[in-house]
Order: sequence, then structure tokens, then C-alpha cells
Amino acid sequence: MKASEAKRSLLALGDDRVNEILRAVSKCLVEATPLILEANEEDLARMDPNDPKYDRLRLTADRLAGIAGDMASVATLPSPVGHLLKEWKRPNGMRLRKVSVPFGVVGVIYEARPNVTCDVFSLCLKSGNVCVLKGGSDADRSNRALVEVIHATLRAFGVEPAVCTLLPPDREATAELLVAEGLVDLIIPRGSGALIRYVRDHARVPVIETGAGICHTYFDRDGDLAKGRAIVNNAKTRRVSVCNALDCLLVHQDRLEDLPDLCAPLSESRVLIFADERAYAALAEHYPAELLARATEENFGTEFLDYKMAIRVVDSLDEALRHIARYGSKHSECVVSESAEAIRRFQLEVDAACVYANVSTAFTDGAQFGFGAEIGISTQKLHARGPMALPELTTYKYLIEGDGQIRPK
Amino acid sequence: MKASEAKRSLLALGDDRVNEILRAVSKCLVEATPLILEANEEDLARMDPNDPKYDRLRLTADRLAGIAGDMASVATLPSPVGHLLKEWKRPNGMRLRKVSVPFGVVGVIYEARPNVTCDVFSLCLKSGNVCVLKGGSDADRSNRALVEVIHATLRAFGVEPAVCTLLPPDREATAELLVAEGLVDLIIPRGSGALIRYVRDHARVPVIETGAGICHTYFDRDGDLAKGRAIVNNAKTRRVSVCNALDCLLVHQDRLEDLPDLCAPLSESRVLIFADERAYAALAEHYPAELLARATEENFGTEFLDYKMAIRVVDSLDEALRHIARYGSKHSECVVSESAEAIRRFQLEVDAACVYANVSTAFTDGAQFGFGAEIGISTQKLHARGPMALPELTTYKYLIEGDGQIRPK
Repeated sequence: MKASEAKRSLLALGDDRVNEILRAVSKCLVEATPLILEANEEDLARMDPNDPKYDRLRLTADRLAGIAGDMASVATLPSPVGHLLKEWKRPNGMRLRKVSVPFGVVGVIYEARPNVTCDVFSLCLKSGNVCVLKGGSDADRSNRALVEVIHATLRAFGVEPAVCTLLPPDREATAELLVAEGLVDLIIPRGSGALIRYVRDHARVPVIETGAGICHTYFDRDGDLAKGRAIVNNAKTRRVSVCNALDCLLVHQDRLEDLPDLCAPLSESRVLIFADERAYAALAEHYPAELLARATEENFGTEFLDYKMAIRVVDSLDEALRHIARYGSKHSECVVSESAEAIRRFQLEVDAACVYANVSTAFTDGAQFGFGAEIGISTQKLHARGPMALPELTTYKYLIEGDGQIRPK
Repeated sequence: MKASEAKRSLLALGDDRVNEILRAVSKCLVEATPLILEANEEDLARMDPNDPKYDRLRLTADRLAGIAGDMASVATLPSPVGHLLKEWKRPNGMRLRKVSVPFGVVGVIYEARPNVTCDVFSLCLKSGNVCVLKGGSDADRSNRALVEVIHATLRAFGVEPAVCTLLPPDREATAELLVAEGLVDLIIPRGSGALIRYVRDHARVPVIETGAGICHTYFDRDGDLAKGRAIVNNAKTRRVSVCNALDCLLVHQDRLEDLPDLCAPLSESRVLIFADERAYAALAEHYPAELLARATEENFGTEFLDYKMAIRVVDSLDEALRHIARYGSKHSECVVSESAEAIRRFQLEVDAACVYANVSTAFTDGAQFGFGAEIGISTQKLHARGPMALPELTTYKYLIEGDGQIRPK
């Protein structure tokens, strides 16, 4: 596979040169706007405008300028490779260094979002990795137009274009990528749960799963009502389609009478609430009847990705912790409490990538964490957890130097 | 699965208590020597004493004392959990902390080596992880005897015995473990290439591969003959059954006349050499004829695990690098050279967990690196590379605290 051989052409490039290339591609993307939008029009013409994917597929001059701007800002970030992570000497005199290095070849499988093509290329180049892109077939013309711009710039800089390899948008290409052991070092699927499950079930190459989030906010006995109301509303309604959106509100039984107040802002966004018995009774005369339903078991542990939310009343912090352990997906969980002890226990015991205290789960995002860029939000624990930025696109190697050391029998 | 629920009982344990338990188990293992050896005898009775696995399965009072000693020394190591890895504040006032935490449940699949049972338990307990052990059926009686001792001690300390769960030694148990998504956080297979491939091909749970190593030593134009001779002999013959043993010697063409000298010590260990044309000619009148064969293509890229070694003559450092990129397994690679520039290029360009300069590859081992313990040698790049010790048995979580921060639209 050419992508694997192209790794070598990145080794000697150096961060200054990488940044020059990113700025040049950024500029060329803007200059090529008419061509790229034309290609995008061809993709759009094949899709039903009522399909929810239509808007994500659609490029405009503004959106393209944003994509180009993101690429230019990756050029301003510090390089994640070549860092001396640790250095030590052994009694026999040999010196060990642990240094950060690129993975090599990173495969990303995604759906019809052309912006991902540029994001992945810029983050991979910045971290010294070759990227193998497998985009959705709906966006193929757009992706090819974007990659043509990238390739033209790479050639102008004397870099092997295969460092950014776009695969054909068919099942066979995905299937080959998933079993390319030794050629591909890491695969990151980005998209629907079905895509991610398919990748996980068929890959032999190491995978980082991203995506699914079943997120709770627990309003504690000692929760501040104003904070809780703002956090619940923000976490649920800021953007319902994101993985860190709120799915289930847990309320301490001693605060039942505050529940109508806690939920009041949600009615403005027409959030449909699935409430358990006690929550239903507390909300019945306060929350719009047409937006209030009795919860069934299946409403818990569901990622809604919609203006829908479950509510369960719990007797104690312990019950809240048990609920989250059972139904959560280890993504983003929040406690609203003024009790330092409740916060301490919640943050210790909840097993999730991001555990919030009195902060909206809407912040689970590389840029919001101050990482400057993000290639995805890992939902597993191996290698990277939560927002993945440039350092998460590196691995390390040990360099051992000596003057002829051998190991005794 | 009980193992998954048992996680909670480790959360509040604390490192002092963990160390007490490890020391107590260590003591009990020695006290239970007669019982354990009796169980081990039953296993041995079912195996042909000529089977190479026989010796690995066999326990003696001395070996058991060694296993117990290793467990006690894990108790002296620093805890890898609860470390503050990073702490920062965002402009909106929210404070972020990145802290090291246990994976949760770690599954280890291994063959008939009862010592692995105790090693894995001690490293997992020390790092706050529940372990699920799937040992080889040949060692089942021994493993059960060891785990009985562990369970008795855990009970005495009021810890849920399921934190050390031994699965039945059948295929079904392995199959269930591999797809226990959400219940098992990480699987580490330890053993033959066939076992590791089986796990990789069938697992849906994240896996760290360990094991296979196709290792080279490159004797450069500027290599020191005395160092090279010692390193080649040590890397090849110290223990031929280990993954970091030397498989292929690459020699710069300008040093062909030194080849007989470089290989001389190997004949004492009766190492069979598969030499390419030029190497064969150089060795023909110096190396024992019955131990010298002409190399075929299949001798390169082979992990011998035996008193066998390939030799290829290369025209340049570049050719050596290309050979290693093509045939190596990214495990342990060595350059013997007095040229700082050759060493620099070799260490930069060779993509391997451990890249040695003038040091035998025999040192790829947690204890030799000064890690104090090792759960395996990772051959992949995701999460951990090379020798894996206690820190590699942890992941992290982000703890975010504030006073009601919400994210603007």
C-alpha cells in the first residue's frame, strides 16, 4: 500500500515545513472555492434536500472559509512529535529515552461530512501521520475535489501525495482497510453507532471508538437551583444532535418540589420529557401536558439525539451512582451540588471520560478544553479517553544507547 | 458479570491496604506450597514430560517462592492511580484536572504458565483493576489452587473475591470474554502467535497485542567489532525462546571480512546460520559447515525462537533501514556503530518499540528497563508500546469543576 510507504517522506519534514504546507493548503482551498462548490453541488443533486444529512454535506463559501481557517490554526499549534517524555539511566550505564512519535498510518472512516476530510488531513500531517480517508459515498465528489487541492499543494512542496490517501467510497475499500494489519496503525471511525459497531466488529487493526454518549446530570440534595436550571437546559438544548447532550436527569427526592423550576426552561425548546412516577406527579401541573409522558424502562439508557429527555427521581447519591453505572456510556456525566463531599464521591466513583461538577456537559469538546483541535471524542479507555487532540495522534518509542551492554544469563 | 460489579470494591481500598493484601497473599502462597504443588502434580500428570510446555507448567517450592517474592515486590512499587497528570483553568473559570484511574476490568488470556496467574493478579490489584483470568486448560488445577489462596486472603480483608475471577478453561469462556463490551475494558492475550491472532480476530473489546518479535541487529560500516560480537551473540543465544531474540543480522558490505569474527561465538551455541550469497562466501571457510546454509527468501522476516539466524549483507545504512521496514515486526531493533550520524538516522527512521544503539536487544523487558514489573510486551502502538508496567494498566479521566458554567450557542 502506497500510504504505508509514504510514511518515510514525512519523517524528515520538520514542523516549520508542515506549518507552511498547512497554510498553503488553507489558502488554496479558498482560491478553489468555485471548483469545490461545483463538486459539492453534484453531490447535493443526488441527495434528497429533506434528508438530515443534506445540511452536513452542504458546503458554502463561508463554510469552506471556516474549514480553511481551522487548517491554518492547526499550523499555529505546537508539534506533538519528538517530545522527550522521559529519560533515565540504568546501573549498567545504558541510557533510555522515551520519545513521542507519529503512529504512522491513521485510517479514518466517516460519513458524508466533507469538513472531516480537511480536519483529518491537517491533524494527521501536523502529527507526522499519513492519513487514509474513507468518506461517505454521498460526499465523494466533494471529497475528491478537496483532496485534489491538498495533493496539488503537497506536490508543490515535494511531498508524496499518498500521505493523504482517499479511498474509493465502496464497502470493499472499507473491508480492506479494516484488516490491513502491519500497514495501518490505527483506525478511527466517526459517525453513526451502526458505522462504529461495524468497524469494531470487523477490524483487526487497532481501533479507537468515538461517538455514542448516554449522558446524565444528577441534581443533588445540595444542588443550587439556578445553576442546575441553567446546566440542564444548556446540556439538553444547546445542540441535541451531539454525543454529550443530556439524556437523563436524575433528581434527589428531597428536591422534588424544585423539579418544575429546574425543568421550566426546557418547555421553551419543546423538550419531550419521559418522567418516572414521582417526577411525573411533581411536573404534572407545571410542565406542558403535551410534552410530558410517563417513562418506560427503555427511556433510560437511550441516547436521544433529539428534544427528548428522561427523568428519574433517586433516593440518594448512591442510587444516582448506581443508575449511572448501569445506564451510562462512560462519556460525560455531571453532578450539580454545593456539597464538596458529594462532588468528591461523584467524581471518584463515576467511571466516565469527563465527570463534571456544576458545569454543563456541553463542554466535552477539544476546543472547549483548550486543545485547539480535535479528531474525535473517544468513548473507550485504551490510549485516549474523551476529546482527542494532537498528542493523542502520537505513540512513543524507546531509544536505548550504550557502549556494548549485554544482558547476563 | 460479577467481575464488573466488583470494581466498586476496589475504589475505596487505598494503596496501603492493597500492599497489605499483596504481602498477605505472598505469605499464604508460600504456606500453601504443599497444596499448590499437589495440584500442579495433577496437571503435570496429564502432560507428556517431553512437551516443551511441561517445564513452563511445572512448579517447585523454589519457583513458588519466586512467584510469591515477585508479588511482595509489587507491593513496594508506587501506585499508578490517582496521579494528577495535568491541571488547568479555562477563561470561563472552569478548572480541569486529568487524573490516572484504573481501566476497571482487565482480561488476560494465557497458556499453561501458572506464574502468569499470580503476576496478573498482583499487577491488576496494584493498579486498581479487577482481573479476569483465562488460563490454559493444561494448568487448570494449578491455577485453581493459586486462586483459592488469593480468594481466601481477599475474603480475610473483606474484599469481594470476584476482583480476581478465574474463568473455566474452555473455548466458550474465551469467546464470551472477547465480546463482553461494556463489562471488560481491556484484553491482553499472552502466548503463542496463534492465540494472539485468535484474540485479535474475534475480540470486540479493546485488545493489546503482545508477543511476536522479528528482530534485527545492523552491524554498520563504522561498527566496533568487539561490541558487535558480544551484542550479536547475546541477542541471539541468551534465550532463544524470547520475542526479543535476534532473528536476522544485517552487515554492511565494507565489513564483510569481519563477518567470521562477528559470528565466531555463535558456533559455540551451535547456531544454524542462513546466509545470503555474500555472507555465505565470507563465512564458508570459517563457520562450521554443518551450521551454515544458504538463505532463502523465507528465512527473512521469520521469528525463529530457536538457535537459528539469518544474515544479509547490505550496501548501505539505507538498505538496512529498508530491510527492517519490510521484514521487522516493530519490536526491538539494534544498530552497532561508532558513527553518531548513523545512530541518529537509525533511531529516527526505524519504527519499533525499542531502538537500540550499541546495546543488546535482550534488554527489552520491564525489569531491565527499571519498571519493576511487567504485564507483557506490547507489539502495537495504541496505548502502550514495548514493556508494559503498572502505569500502562491505567487510563485517565477528566474532572471538570465550576460554578454553573454553560456553553454559549
